[in-house]
Amino acid sequence: MSLNLQTHTEHFTNPLYLESGRILEPYDITYETYGELNEDKSNVVVVCHALTGSHHAAGTYEDERKAGWWDGLIGSGKAVDTDKYFVICTNVIGSCFGSTGPMSPKHPHHEPYRYKFPVVTIKDMVKAQRILFDRLDIHRVEAIIGGSMGGMQALQFAIHYPNFAKKIIALATTYATQPWAIAFNKVASESILKDPEFKQGYYDPEVIKENGLSGMAVGRMAGHISFLSHESMDEKFGREYKRTDGLYELFGKFQVESYLEYNGYNFTKWFDPLAYLYITKAINIYDLSRGFDSLAEALQKITAKLHLISFSNDMLFKSDEMKHIDDVLNENAQTNHKYIDIQSDYGHDAFLVELEKFDFYIKEALDE
Amino acid sequence: MSLNLQTHTEHFTNPLYLESGRILEPYDITYETYGELNEDKSNVVVVCHALTGSHHAAGTYEDERKAGWWDGLIGSGKAVDTDKYFVICTNVIGSCFGSTGPMSPKHPHHEPYRYKFPVVTIKDMVKAQRILFDRLDIHRVEAIIGGSMGGMQALQFAIHYPNFAKKIIALATTYATQPWAIAFNKVASESILKDPEFKQGYYDPEVIKENGLSGMAVGRMAGHISFLSHESMDEKFGREYKRTDGLYELFGKFQVESYLEYNGYNFTKWFDPLAYLYITKAINIYDLSRGFDSLAEALQKITAKLHLISFSNDMLFKSDEMKHIDDVLNENAQTNHKYIDIQSDYGHDAFLVELEKFDFYIKEALDE
Repeated sequence: MSLNLQTHTEHFTNPLYLESGRILEPYDITYETYGELNEDKSNVVVVCHALTGSHHAAGTYEDERKAGWWDGLIGSGKAVDTDKYFVICTNVIGSCFGSTGPMSPKHPHHEPYRYKFPVVTIKDMVKAQRILFDRLDIHRVEAIIGGSMGGMQALQFAIHYPNFAKKIIALATTYATQPWAIAFNKVASESILKDPEFKQGYYDPEVIKENGLSGMAVGRMAGHISFLSHESMDEKFGREYKRTDGLYELFGKFQVESYLEYNGYNFTKWFDPLAYLYITKAINIYDLSRGFDSLAEALQKITAKLHLISFSNDMLFKSDEMKHIDDVLNENAQTNHKYIDIQSDYGHDAFLVELEKFDFYIKEALDE
Repeated sequence: MSLNLQTHTEHFTNPLYLESGRILEPYDITYETYGELNEDKSNVVVVCHALTGSHHAAGTYEDERKAGWWDGLIGSGKAVDTDKYFVICTNVIGSCFGSTGPMSPKHPHHEPYRYKFPVVTIKDMVKAQRILFDRLDIHRVEAIIGGSMGGMQALQFAIHYPNFAKKIIALATTYATQPWAIAFNKVASESILKDPEFKQGYYDPEVIKENGLSGMAVGRMAGHISFLSHESMDEKFGREYKRTDGLYELFGKFQVESYLEYNGYNFTKWFDPLAYLYITKAINIYDLSRGFDSLAEALQKITAKLHLISFSNDMLFKSDEMKHIDDVLNENAQTNHKYIDIQSDYGHDAFLVELEKFDFYIKEALDE
């Protein structure tokens, strides 16, 4: 069967009350769907994207060379089987792929928000999605799945909308962002802010896309380090030189340097710097226990079956952090969960690239 | 007894033939000494500094608030006991604290070398030191000790001047720089190069020192991540906020962010960006096996007693890398060495800050 990829944008005029006390009004949410919604709307699976991801999780548009970011996982006969499930992936608020973010026009003017955009949290992103699903008349879903920031969303769903999903599958994520991850985000934000072409937030997005923004490229390069691991870098690059004669040239390049440079600069062609600042802020202040006395109290809200999947060499969100959730649940005799740590050399990127190590597990969890 | 701190600079007019085939001529080497040279010059200990270190390893000048970088280790009654040993630490060529580097005047003009400075290697740094010691009529030393890039120098001494030192003590270092470390250096170099104030290498050093160089600050921030570990960051910073009301402010800061910012910008007041580019280049291309068929062949040159000390949570030069040297030596039945891995949460910085975990070991190794 076909993937039946569809893209939609919904417009909301009701105010979105944010965790900060501020209001976002009006706002749009752009989302993609795959598969067919069944008659009683009981076959919905929600997929949540990571920091620089988008609603485009699967399939390939006509003008695209690369498929959606989790195409290997979502589709006909795949782990998230679109012959069976109706899959929805929404672009989070604060991002730059159709949902309202800092470069969206600030009502009633047509000027972008820029710094007037309110800080949004992972909880706010989830709240906006919940409102979208309400409009779509979807009130209970089979599962919510996400990795990295997508996993943060899945966990927030589990705690704040405990009756919404039967199953929660969170990969390569954490219960609260730790200083190691915040530090990497800091390198990126500082680098963006100090780039004169960023013009203190008053850049022309078209100019940035055209010329690149070296500050964001440098920040992304740091990000790529955090997505990998010592082992994956040794495997991918070793000490290979791009040109054999570059050894004694100051700007001679190792393969790992070319990789970072290519990905860093390419990134500036498709991502918005203010969105980067706002989303990394949301990640930095993500903490499941906020508003509760403890993480244990927060986790007690969960009624869904919870699947926690970490990757042994994840340097960004360490296995220990997922294990900590498992430990707290066990201490409180909450038994409706499973935690597995997958042996992988890939580092954080494993949730995007080593699908064969966990797709069967997701299939099993969904079909349970 | 007093430390007897002395600083000297020696000028050399003979050409220094570099590994690249290029020549450095003339050149200066600045160095410090502590303690007293005995009559038969048999009590010399050489200390080698790391990337941003200098010859100022111990003691405190009148105008200083902080002592030299290994002051806890070097001094009267300390592990490297200046009552007993005459300690020499030289500023490496390519650096910016008195020895010839990219901002030194290019003979016969008075203009700085800038990009005309040749790429130097760790082996070149060691060669220049060996020539200095020759001039000082020191032809054999008790020990050479260094951590990080200092450890690289110690190992290069062991291989290329096998009769020069009785003991080699290398800490927190590697046999060849791996892509993880090269990647961090890349973030820094790219960030420096793209800062408009760097003026493509034609900056005014006084202006840079006065105003700071945000590109280098960002690069140093990335560097600081690599010097720490997840555990040390959790311990040092946790998720503490600088101001409690900063949570929902886009630029509200976590403690870890303030730490990186402070150290990043402070760094630009005392270090030169071109020196940073040249020294990180030397680190990137450091490979003990260069010029040999294998690492094993290189290590076979060593006749000194070799002490290898790694730190369990070092993220920059992983314990495994030091263990690899140990493994190769063992495979070749080279028994005159000892390897220890010190349990520490500090990460790479441990060799500078957790002295109490290894100073007794260094004392023992020296007095053996």
